[in-house]
Amino acid sequence: MISREDALQLDAADPLAALRDRFDLPAGVIYLDGNSLGALPRHVAGRLHDAITQEWGQGLIRSWNEAGWSDLPKRVGDRIGRLIGAEPDSVIACDTTSINLFKVASAAALKSDRPIILTDEGNFPTDVYVLDAVARQHEKEVKMWDPLNDEIGSDVAFVAMTEVNYRTGERHDMAGITNRAHVAGAEIIWDLAHSAGAFPVRLAECGVDYAVGCGYKYLNGGPGASAFVYVSPDRQADFANPITGWWGHARPFDMSLTFEPHEGIDRARIGTQHVLSLAGLDAALDVFDGIDLADLRAKSLSLTGLFIELLSDQVPSAEVVTPTDSNRRGSQVSFRHPSAYAVVRALIDRQVIGDFRNPDIARFGVAPLYVRHVDIWDAVGHLVEVLATNEWQHAKYQDRAAVT
Amino acid sequence: MISREDALQLDAADPLAALRDRFDLPAGVIYLDGNSLGALPRHVAGRLHDAITQEWGQGLIRSWNEAGWSDLPKRVGDRIGRLIGAEPDSVIACDTTSINLFKVASAAALKSDRPIILTDEGNFPTDVYVLDAVARQHEKEVKMWDPLNDEIGSDVAFVAMTEVNYRTGERHDMAGITNRAHVAGAEIIWDLAHSAGAFPVRLAECGVDYAVGCGYKYLNGGPGASAFVYVSPDRQADFANPITGWWGHARPFDMSLTFEPHEGIDRARIGTQHVLSLAGLDAALDVFDGIDLADLRAKSLSLTGLFIELLSDQVPSAEVVTPTDSNRRGSQVSFRHPSAYAVVRALIDRQVIGDFRNPDIARFGVAPLYVRHVDIWDAVGHLVEVLATNEWQHAKYQDRAAVT
Repeated sequence: MISREDALQLDAADPLAALRDRFDLPAGVIYLDGNSLGALPRHVAGRLHDAITQEWGQGLIRSWNEAGWSDLPKRVGDRIGRLIGAEPDSVIACDTTSINLFKVASAAALKSDRPIILTDEGNFPTDVYVLDAVARQHEKEVKMWDPLNDEIGSDVAFVAMTEVNYRTGERHDMAGITNRAHVAGAEIIWDLAHSAGAFPVRLAECGVDYAVGCGYKYLNGGPGASAFVYVSPDRQADFANPITGWWGHARPFDMSLTFEPHEGIDRARIGTQHVLSLAGLDAALDVFDGIDLADLRAKSLSLTGLFIELLSDQVPSAEVVTPTDSNRRGSQVSFRHPSAYAVVRALIDRQVIGDFRNPDIARFGVAPLYVRHVDIWDAVGHLVEVLATNEWQHAKYQDRAAVT
Repeated sequence: MISREDALQLDAADPLAALRDRFDLPAGVIYLDGNSLGALPRHVAGRLHDAITQEWGQGLIRSWNEAGWSDLPKRVGDRIGRLIGAEPDSVIACDTTSINLFKVASAAALKSDRPIILTDEGNFPTDVYVLDAVARQHEKEVKMWDPLNDEIGSDVAFVAMTEVNYRTGERHDMAGITNRAHVAGAEIIWDLAHSAGAFPVRLAECGVDYAVGCGYKYLNGGPGASAFVYVSPDRQADFANPITGWWGHARPFDMSLTFEPHEGIDRARIGTQHVLSLAGLDAALDVFDGIDLADLRAKSLSLTGLFIELLSDQVPSAEVVTPTDSNRRGSQVSFRHPSAYAVVRALIDRQVIGDFRNPDIARFGVAPLYVRHVDIWDAVGHLVEVLATNEWQHAKYQDRAAVT
């Protein structure tokens, strides 16, 4: 069995260990929910203060040019692009993940006469709702599909998957599924909500057509930070944004009544962007500067591997649903437990913050920028105590009215 | 002729005069672009600092409940609702104006078999682009319409207008046009981009079906602040959001794969909202607390009336396009000038900030919360000098590459 001392030694040998100090984590908290909301990088508050008091307060309208607000979605998009293996000028940061999925799914639906949209039961619900809306609007049908066992038929317009299952943490085979879609004559959309910033993604290398993702999880952009959308360079020329707005126009300030799409990825824009939310995300991305993403992945797998090993040894009542095969694992560990909700609540009271997902999943995100091996060791220690003492059975942990 | 002393006396008698001190305006600047980007209320920076360092940094994921982030769109929506004469629980702050227009226009289009969508040539271009997109998706046609001279036919599904023309500052007759639409069996959408926070709007009293608007102009929510959408209580039950996302679901955290719309206005939500942008808007709205909106309107008309009077007297080459009839005027003054672009640039170098709109409009927003009569008097003085000295003919003012 690995000891707490062993965990501390793994941290001492961690080449990314110093990054934790760049985050303003609350004292005493073991934060294992960076897959819901990333922690605050220390320098972000100051950068946002400047954006508010100087750029907005003093620069006022002039800051659209002088502080570069106009191009901020593109600049932030390119910075995210490096983390997800995208070509330059193929990512833009804007709007929300759901809206960005609506854009690319609508564009893909419009291009194809085929009647079927494929996704899987493990996709995040909002993705399925958006796909259903697109299907209705384009007279197509969403079919649930098992990527491990089912073929992709010649009636499939496109496949839409989230790379990492939000409940189990299973990571799908992006290269393989993308290739299968293309062989079947279908396009593919990947949702990178639980990928971007957690490990290197290789969109260009895999030949992905479209991707979307989230700025507030592993990218640490702050609550509700701007999302992003990727359209491969080969797909940009015929990418038809279903919501044509002035910031997607070739010349927004001509104020022409006739829409003409911008060249390239800028056509994925719609309205005026949430500058403060984008500025926070822009600042947060500094933490990734100079990091080798292979190191990030290695640390993530070391942490999640340790977590699974400790759970298997010490918590037999927890059915780990995250793959033990590291190739099939994102950056979280989840287990099923009949009282998962109460267990998670009891852990939160002990300052070990994970979250619960319906119906019986306890979920722990492992953000390799700031989570340590000793945090995992201590978290499992708390879990063992919560279960051994029946602490979770306290009445205050049973009310499920307010869950996020 | 009104003198500078007269202008100062008008300011001394202004019941809203003290509000100017609540804004952090740059020294020496006469800011007449609050219709593009509202000024920074002083207390907002501190409130956002708390949201960043305490709610995000210390509260982390817990702040969705403990800091009330989940309900923030609704709370901010209700605060805006008071300013626009909306019923409680009928406004929500979220996304961008263009996206909100897409929601209500799509919902209105889906409900009607009629083939025509009416708007007017003076509508903001992005509104026309969005209406065109909706028309294409629903096999309808957008027709340009002159509200003063044309009828609303029985083939019209809905009318979509911006209340105040962004170029001329003309204010349309909301009550009259809404009534005419209803008599013709059509629904109506009003864009309040240049209305909300500038003067009282009476959505409920006028029987408006849908409205959208902007958080970063007269509401002073900050660059790219969240927009808002209104759906009248009578229209909420059959309001079909075209982009179904988890925050519009009746029970988002059930994580069901089947979409079921939320009761009421919450169904107009889609994805996770930009919390920092919303928090800034929420704080900014404090400035409106306790203000009688009739006073705000009276001051706005006094300021724009003075502006028009001074222009007519002193700047004969400026063709004022803003109505002199105060019932038909928003809260801005615009004039045509063959060299409007260069004139606006020269004024900006004199710290008089207005803006230019294609092809020949110089536009000056008058935010009655912080603009004074003496600012108007001084601005016109600068304009007279810019024109008299041919200062605007300087080569540096002729390059039109960068306009916002």
